[in-house]
Amino acid sequence: MITGKNYIGNIRSSEGTKTFTTFNPQENKRNTSVITEASIEEIDKAVALAANAFQVYSNKTGLEKACFLRAIADEIEALGTALIEVYTSESGLAAARAMGERGRTVGQLRAFALHIEEGTWVAASIDTAQPERQPVAKIDLRKMNIALGPIVVFGASNFPFAFSTAGGDTAAALAAGCPVIVKSHPMHAGTGELVASAIIKAAQKTGMPNGVFSNLNSSGIEVGQALVKHPSIKGVGFTGSIRAGRALFDLAAKRPEPIPVFAEMGSVNPVIFLPEALNEKAVDWAKIYAGSITLGAGQFCTNPGLLLGIAGEGLNQFGLTLAEEIIKIAPTCMLHPTICDAYESNKAKVVSQEGVSVLVDYEDTSQNNYGRQIVSKVSGAVFLENPTLHLEVFGPSSLLVICKDAAQLVQIVNNLEGQLTGTIIATDSEIAANPSIVSALQNRVGRIIFNGVPTGVEVCPSMQHGGPYPASTDARFTAVGVDSIKRWVRPFSFQAWPNNLLPAALKNENPLAILRTVDGVKTRNKI
Amino acid sequence: MITGKNYIGNIRSSEGTKTFTTFNPQENKRNTSVITEASIEEIDKAVALAANAFQVYSNKTGLEKACFLRAIADEIEALGTALIEVYTSESGLAAARAMGERGRTVGQLRAFALHIEEGTWVAASIDTAQPERQPVAKIDLRKMNIALGPIVVFGASNFPFAFSTAGGDTAAALAAGCPVIVKSHPMHAGTGELVASAIIKAAQKTGMPNGVFSNLNSSGIEVGQALVKHPSIKGVGFTGSIRAGRALFDLAAKRPEPIPVFAEMGSVNPVIFLPEALNEKAVDWAKIYAGSITLGAGQFCTNPGLLLGIAGEGLNQFGLTLAEEIIKIAPTCMLHPTICDAYESNKAKVVSQEGVSVLVDYEDTSQNNYGRQIVSKVSGAVFLENPTLHLEVFGPSSLLVICKDAAQLVQIVNNLEGQLTGTIIATDSEIAANPSIVSALQNRVGRIIFNGVPTGVEVCPSMQHGGPYPASTDARFTAVGVDSIKRWVRPFSFQAWPNNLLPAALKNENPLAILRTVDGVKTRNKI
Repeated sequence: MITGKNYIGNIRSSEGTKTFTTFNPQENKRNTSVITEASIEEIDKAVALAANAFQVYSNKTGLEKACFLRAIADEIEALGTALIEVYTSESGLAAARAMGERGRTVGQLRAFALHIEEGTWVAASIDTAQPERQPVAKIDLRKMNIALGPIVVFGASNFPFAFSTAGGDTAAALAAGCPVIVKSHPMHAGTGELVASAIIKAAQKTGMPNGVFSNLNSSGIEVGQALVKHPSIKGVGFTGSIRAGRALFDLAAKRPEPIPVFAEMGSVNPVIFLPEALNEKAVDWAKIYAGSITLGAGQFCTNPGLLLGIAGEGLNQFGLTLAEEIIKIAPTCMLHPTICDAYESNKAKVVSQEGVSVLVDYEDTSQNNYGRQIVSKVSGAVFLENPTLHLEVFGPSSLLVICKDAAQLVQIVNNLEGQLTGTIIATDSEIAANPSIVSALQNRVGRIIFNGVPTGVEVCPSMQHGGPYPASTDARFTAVGVDSIKRWVRPFSFQAWPNNLLPAALKNENPLAILRTVDGVKTRNKI
Repeated sequence: MITGKNYIGNIRSSEGTKTFTTFNPQENKRNTSVITEASIEEIDKAVALAANAFQVYSNKTGLEKACFLRAIADEIEALGTALIEVYTSESGLAAARAMGERGRTVGQLRAFALHIEEGTWVAASIDTAQPERQPVAKIDLRKMNIALGPIVVFGASNFPFAFSTAGGDTAAALAAGCPVIVKSHPMHAGTGELVASAIIKAAQKTGMPNGVFSNLNSSGIEVGQALVKHPSIKGVGFTGSIRAGRALFDLAAKRPEPIPVFAEMGSVNPVIFLPEALNEKAVDWAKIYAGSITLGAGQFCTNPGLLLGIAGEGLNQFGLTLAEEIIKIAPTCMLHPTICDAYESNKAKVVSQEGVSVLVDYEDTSQNNYGRQIVSKVSGAVFLENPTLHLEVFGPSSLLVICKDAAQLVQIVNNLEGQLTGTIIATDSEIAANPSIVSALQNRVGRIIFNGVPTGVEVCPSMQHGGPYPASTDARFTAVGVDSIKRWVRPFSFQAWPNNLLPAALKNENPLAILRTVDGVKTRNKI
């Protein structure tokens, strides 16, 4: 079923000479399908097809694009258990997780379908002419969002469905009217090929132009680099490490025509525990956080890697209970031996830092590639001085920082790098009494959480997934939710344009019945 | 009245040792006021003040910020003719232009005041909790736009008011809740100081924190570079040349924490003349374009520098009449000898290219620093082969390109770099019959104009001022109109946050009565 070929538009192709295989971390052995890396010629073909497809696809109506997105969702579901089996064999993740993530992925596609079918998202704005205005006449001007051009999406290791081939970036770009070329993640290239086949089938069934989607395999960095440098590519979506994301950002910034790179990268997702809340519920919070830290073997970008509290009885109790609870949880398989190896070496690095002590460390190494949880402890003073302790440890690891007082806690938060999320565990009176802590945290994050956990990213319009660098390369956008479509469009104005040639969203008659800004007022009225 | 000092927050300061003077191009002599360049210590102080001010200013209500913006407008008007005199003495521009531009500038400030007072611009989105949802409860999530942080604005040579000290970038950033540090343009540092004094006065009258605004002088690139590299600066606004804008973009992209640079740069603003329209009205269009090319000595970013047509009688007639008409127009003074010198040398460079012939050239050189108009002519084939002819000549110059047919015209448009505007002169039937020309132009520009001129940038919500690179560094935003506020904000989510501690825009009661997205539906209702 897996051919190992690329999709260059609608055509399966394997002209390259470099091949690789994926790995089953649960069984600790290579999978058998041989994947062929895309050649430079294939990359060029895919981009040329995308550039041509853009001229047609960007003019498709919301309804037409919605049909396409829904067909993709249907075709993914039609792949049934075969897809789930390949997913689990390439990720070490359980079938239940695979099915949940598939649900999220098709849900995202259908949410975007609804969004673009309704149509208000184009932000249509109309200023009507005032020919009599003095000293000069006002000319009719109409603005809306239009698609940016062909987009490259990099598959993410930790979300083979939801942030990969037909994941959020792809769904958002296709919804916007941009053709997409996916640089498939090498760890789950087979899963990627199957999902790509669903997209291609959907494109053909709904009459989308050849080149609206391509899927390229690669085990190294060359294919991705060639794509980002290609003059016809107009934007990049990426989810992964800071090192790789920054490299792509730098490459795109150095182009003769720089292009936007939306990279969602590392985060330690600080959690602040205030004393009263711990005095009331230290044990409850410890149990909840034992679960959040180990969820999905800690391989979520919102994993709570940094726990901050003020020295005292409550924090002691919390630390002890967290250690007791987290050790009860059975470790689970990580995505790949390289990810597990990196986790082990990053853990060792943290533990070897002066002043760091281990609260609890899961020691049984009998299962290959399993993420063994660890919680370490350090004083606020040491943490402030040692930037190594600020780095993300990708896996089920967390560092408890014991601050001497609230002032030191604020100082630590002010010195953190940008984060996706920040959480405050506090009583109602405590949070009201600590505006300086809230304000410091707000400056460093994209989403702030009260008495909860950062894991669990709801896909809904009010979600901001993205934050100050290095959480993402452009905090002005979100990677999750329908607003993520805004990354792949640009506003465009028509001046004195004939009504019959205007896009439907801007015509006098408002045929789409969308909410528009007309002479500064929001309305669904005709003109 | 001009002290030549910087404003480091509310304090006039001149600790630096480097000084310079401005130049009166009409009188061809230096002005007398001595301007002192900001020192590194002063830069650091201004940024530190801005970072502190951000904590207070970003939490001001829309109403409070609106009062501040209106007070700035009032204080600028209160400077009266003294300000107009300094403006004309530093720019060579006429008093009428100065007054018009002042009107636009205070108009922009008041438009932003209205915009933030109304408040819907924060794009409030609320997803209410669904505690009973299966398989997991949905948690309350609320999102709105918040200010990015301290912003640096670079004054533009060609708009001493509207794109400088209290210009569009400053107004938008202050409206968003961001403190602003202006790197004043050295050509009109005196004007800058006066406008800065109005801002400082307004800030003090309306109780804004010290550091919400600073104004730094500089004749070289060091001050600007130090500002863009400063870790506490979170965004940059720039209007000027491609070379300078790209240098700032590169500098910002190389920072440990890259920051957005919104640079509005060069544009030749192609105008396409289709045959029927010229057959009907060649003379009328020639007269109109003679005016547009020479408007403001051609020193507008929307100046039509490239005229494209298809060989034929109509185009011949147009070219001849344009030459006749444009020579009748009296040249006007350019902004500075260096700008006039650059103009002369760029003109000479174009004219010296093989295959370029001069249609008309204003020869009288008796007036110093005046921009002498020129129109040259070249074939489509030569234009395609010679990138030098694609470059912007800043001044009253335009190049008429004679294409052999519509296919060559489309090819030329496809090969153009990104532009602020593109214009099509056509009959109704002609424009409907040429979708490939329209579509090619649309891909290269931010605003498309039917039967008009690109000069004259209406300040209204439907204006897109910005386009594909190098028209601007990020085509996803506009530099003109209230939507330009979007450059200086980021979305921010509150999860399960106590209602009494939420910003007013997100409270259940909707105390601001703004339009919000609640569970996916636009409404002004309470929750």
